[in-house]
Amino acid sequence: MASGEIDTVLAYLQNHHEQYRKELIQFLQIPSISALSTHKEDVHRAATWLAHRLQAAGVPHVRIEETPGHPIVFGEVITDPHRPTVLVYGHYDVQPVDPLDQWTNPPFSPTIIDNILYARGSSDDKGQVYMQVIAAEAWLKTGTLPVNLKFLFEGEEEIGSVHLEHYIQTHQEELRADLAVISDTPMFAAGVPAVCYGLRGLAALEIHVEGPYQDLHSGVFGGAVANPAHVLAQIIASLHDDEGRVTVPGFYDDVDGLSEEERKNFAALPFDEEEFRQSTGSPALYGEAGYTTLERIWTRPTLEVNGMWAGFIGEGRKTIIPQSAHAKISCRLVPHQDPQKILNQVNQFITDQCPPTVKLRIDRGEGDPGTVTPLDHFATQAAVQAIRAVYHQDAAFIRMGGSIPVVVTFDQVLNIPTVLLGFALPDENFHAPNEHFHLENFDKGAETIATLWQILGQTHHHQGGTHVNP
Amino acid sequence: MASGEIDTVLAYLQNHHEQYRKELIQFLQIPSISALSTHKEDVHRAATWLAHRLQAAGVPHVRIEETPGHPIVFGEVITDPHRPTVLVYGHYDVQPVDPLDQWTNPPFSPTIIDNILYARGSSDDKGQVYMQVIAAEAWLKTGTLPVNLKFLFEGEEEIGSVHLEHYIQTHQEELRADLAVISDTPMFAAGVPAVCYGLRGLAALEIHVEGPYQDLHSGVFGGAVANPAHVLAQIIASLHDDEGRVTVPGFYDDVDGLSEEERKNFAALPFDEEEFRQSTGSPALYGEAGYTTLERIWTRPTLEVNGMWAGFIGEGRKTIIPQSAHAKISCRLVPHQDPQKILNQVNQFITDQCPPTVKLRIDRGEGDPGTVTPLDHFATQAAVQAIRAVYHQDAAFIRMGGSIPVVVTFDQVLNIPTVLLGFALPDENFHAPNEHFHLENFDKGAETIATLWQILGQTHHHQGGTHVNP
Repeated sequence: MASGEIDTVLAYLQNHHEQYRKELIQFLQIPSISALSTHKEDVHRAATWLAHRLQAAGVPHVRIEETPGHPIVFGEVITDPHRPTVLVYGHYDVQPVDPLDQWTNPPFSPTIIDNILYARGSSDDKGQVYMQVIAAEAWLKTGTLPVNLKFLFEGEEEIGSVHLEHYIQTHQEELRADLAVISDTPMFAAGVPAVCYGLRGLAALEIHVEGPYQDLHSGVFGGAVANPAHVLAQIIASLHDDEGRVTVPGFYDDVDGLSEEERKNFAALPFDEEEFRQSTGSPALYGEAGYTTLERIWTRPTLEVNGMWAGFIGEGRKTIIPQSAHAKISCRLVPHQDPQKILNQVNQFITDQCPPTVKLRIDRGEGDPGTVTPLDHFATQAAVQAIRAVYHQDAAFIRMGGSIPVVVTFDQVLNIPTVLLGFALPDENFHAPNEHFHLENFDKGAETIATLWQILGQTHHHQGGTHVNP
Repeated sequence: MASGEIDTVLAYLQNHHEQYRKELIQFLQIPSISALSTHKEDVHRAATWLAHRLQAAGVPHVRIEETPGHPIVFGEVITDPHRPTVLVYGHYDVQPVDPLDQWTNPPFSPTIIDNILYARGSSDDKGQVYMQVIAAEAWLKTGTLPVNLKFLFEGEEEIGSVHLEHYIQTHQEELRADLAVISDTPMFAAGVPAVCYGLRGLAALEIHVEGPYQDLHSGVFGGAVANPAHVLAQIIASLHDDEGRVTVPGFYDDVDGLSEEERKNFAALPFDEEEFRQSTGSPALYGEAGYTTLERIWTRPTLEVNGMWAGFIGEGRKTIIPQSAHAKISCRLVPHQDPQKILNQVNQFITDQCPPTVKLRIDRGEGDPGTVTPLDHFATQAAVQAIRAVYHQDAAFIRMGGSIPVVVTFDQVLNIPTVLLGFALPDENFHAPNEHFHLENFDKGAETIATLWQILGQTHHHQGGTHVNP
C-alpha cells in the first residue's frame, strides 16, 4: 500500500478542516426543500453550489442536468480506464422543517455545539454528499486518484426520486461503473462504524371488501347479511399464524436462510432489546418465532397492515353494517423474493379466504426486491478495510429493514453492486426537528472514503452485481 | 259490541275526509326539522298546531311542555277512571331534507298523486300522529270515547329523544296508563297490516388497541413489534364462529327460544328472501346457522362492527406500523338479555383474546334491552281484532330488528306494555328524499285506531307489563 500517498491525502483533509466547516455551513444554509414548490429556486441554487464545488475540487466534467422536476448534478473524473470505476450517489435536497417551533436553532442557520452540527440536511444527506466531494478533492489536489469516479447527486430523493430512474435508464453508458457507493445511511451506533450489505424490498397492495350497496341499519338488517368489516378482519387474522409467521403458501419459499456467520455477526452487535423496545413504546417485542429482533427486521420478510378502515369512524355511535371495509397492506421482502410472485401469492391466498357473501377487489401496488451484497464481495471487503484503517476497529456488518430504491435500479439497470457506507448516527433526527451530524464522524467519514478509493485502486476483481432476485 | 256506535264513528271519519286531507297538508307544511337550530321556531309552530288541533278534537286538557330542547305536547281525556287508559305516543318533528335536489316535489309542499301523499313527515310520523288525533275526535264528537287517552307527542325523536326520558321520569303519575300505543312503524308490506310485538335492544362499546407510541416505519421496525391492526383483526375475527354465531361465552344464555308458533307465523309471511337480498345489494344473505332471515333479524342477537380504523387511510401508500387500531361495536339484543351483562361478557372475552404485546382499552357504551309483548297479551289481541274488523283479514305478527328506546322507558319507568300499530309501508322513504304515505293506509289506520279504542273499552284485563329483562 502506498502509505505515503494516503498520508498526504489525509493530511490535506486535516489541513483544510476550517475551510470545510465553513463550506459545509454555506451548503446547509440553502433551504433546498424539494417537496415545496416555493423552494424550487433554492433547490436549483443547491445544485449549482454543488456543481461548482465539484469543479473546484478538480472534477473536470461536471454538468447540471435539468429534469421536469429538480436537477441532477453529474460529475466525472476518469484517471485511467483500467482502474475500477465507482458511481457515487447522494442527494442534495432536504426534508421540510415543520414543526418549525420545535427547532432549538433555525434549520437553515447551521450551528455547531460540542462538535455537533445542527441543521436540516446535516446528516441527511448534504453533509455526507460533501464528505464525498472533499475526499475526492484531497486526492485530486495531492496526487493521483486511484479510481475513476462518477458522481450522481439528485435533488428529489425526499420526494421519491421521481426522475432518477428515467435518467439512469437513459444514461447507462455514461453511468457505467464497477460498483456504487452511497453515503446516506447511519452507522450501527456511536463508535460502531458499519457496512450495510442488505436491504429489504417492498410489495404493496390494497384490499377492498364490499357487501351491501350502502351502509345498512344494523337493527333492520343486522344478522342477515355478512358484515364486510368482519370478513376483512377474518382475512387479516388469517395472514399470520400464532407464532408470527406469514401463512400465505409459498411466502418463504425463496427466502435466503440466515448463515451462521450472519447470526454470529448480529449477535455480536451492541444491541439492547429492552432499549429498542422502549424506543418503540410497545409494551413488548413480538415477531416471527425462532429469530432475534435484528434478524427479524433485517433478514425476514414481513406482511403488515399499514392502514384499515370500515364504516363509521366519527365521534359517537352509528349503528350500521358498513358498506365496505378496506386495508392497505405491504410486505417487506428479503433478497431472492420476487415482488410479483409474492403479490400473486398474497392475492391468491386472500381470494381463497374470502367468502362468497361479499365482493373482493384487490389493487396490486408496485414492488421492489430486496438486495444484498455478499460479505465476501470485493466491494464489501474494501469498505471493511477502509474502516479498519481509519477507526482502528472492525466494521460491523449490518443490514437494514427499509428499502433504498436506487440500489435496486443500480442492480437491475446498471448491473452493479452497491456499498452502503454511511456515517450518520441512527438518532440524528433525519426528517425531524433538530437534525444534526456529529462532526467527528464527518471527519472520519471523509478519511474512510479517501482510504476506500486507495484500497479499491489496488483491487481488480470484477465480480457480478449485487444479489437481487431473480 | 255496540256496532251502532262504531259505525257512527267511522262514518264521521269518512264524512270529514276532505277536511282531514287539508289539515294534514297544513301540518306537513310546517318544516319541523328538529336537528337544525334554524328550524327551532318551526318545530315550536308544529307543536302549537298539534296542541290546538287536539283541543279542537275535544281533548279537554292540552299543554305544551317546554323542555331545554323542543317542546312536548301533552293531552288528556279521561272519560271514566274505570275504563282502560291508553298512552298514545308519537312525534311531530321530522328529519332533515338533504339532498334537496332529489325531491320531485319540495318536501314541505305536500302533493297528492294517485292517493299517495308526498311530503317530509308524511309517514314518519306526522301523518300517523294526525291519525291518532282524528280517531279520538271521531269518538269525542259522536259519542263516548270508550277508553281514557293520554297523548304524549315529542319534538325530538329524530335527534334521539333527548329530553323525553327525563319528562317521563318526572311525570309518572300523570302518564299512568294500562298500555301504550305507538303508530310510528310500518306494516309488514302493502296489504299486510301488522302488529309488531317485539323489538331488539342494543349494547355498544368501543375497542382501542394501542401498540407503539407513534406510527413506526415498517422497514425499520417491521417484524419486531406487534401490529395493533393485526391484533384488532384477530380480536374481531374471534368474535364469530364459522356458522355466524357469536363466540362470547354466555352471550346466548338468556335468549328466549323461538316458539313453534312464532316460527310458523314468520314462515307464513309473504317474504321473498331474494327480493330482500336485492334490496341490500349484498351478493348473498348470511347469518347464524339454523335460522331464517326473518328469525335472524327479529329474534336473534347480533354483534356487529359498525366501524373500524387504524393507521394510514389516505390516498397512496405509507409504510407504517399503525400506533393503534380501533373498532366501534354494537350488539342487537333480544328480550331477556341484560345489556350490562352482555357488555361484561364481551368486555371479558375481548380482554382474554388480547395479547400482552399491545395495550387494550374498552369504552363501554350504553345499552337498552329488547322488548316483547306476548302474543296472547290483551293489548296485542285487541289490536289484532281491530285490524280484522277494518281490513277483513288477520294481522301479521311481526317483530322488528331495531330499537325504540321509548318502549323500554314505558316498560321500565311506567311498567306498561306497548302495542306498535303502524300504518306506513316499509318503502315509503322515511329519512330519505320523496318520503310519502299511502292515504289508503292513513284512512284505514284511523279507522283501526278508532276500532281499537272500542275493543279496549270492552276489555278489563290488567296483565303485567311488556316482558323486559330482567
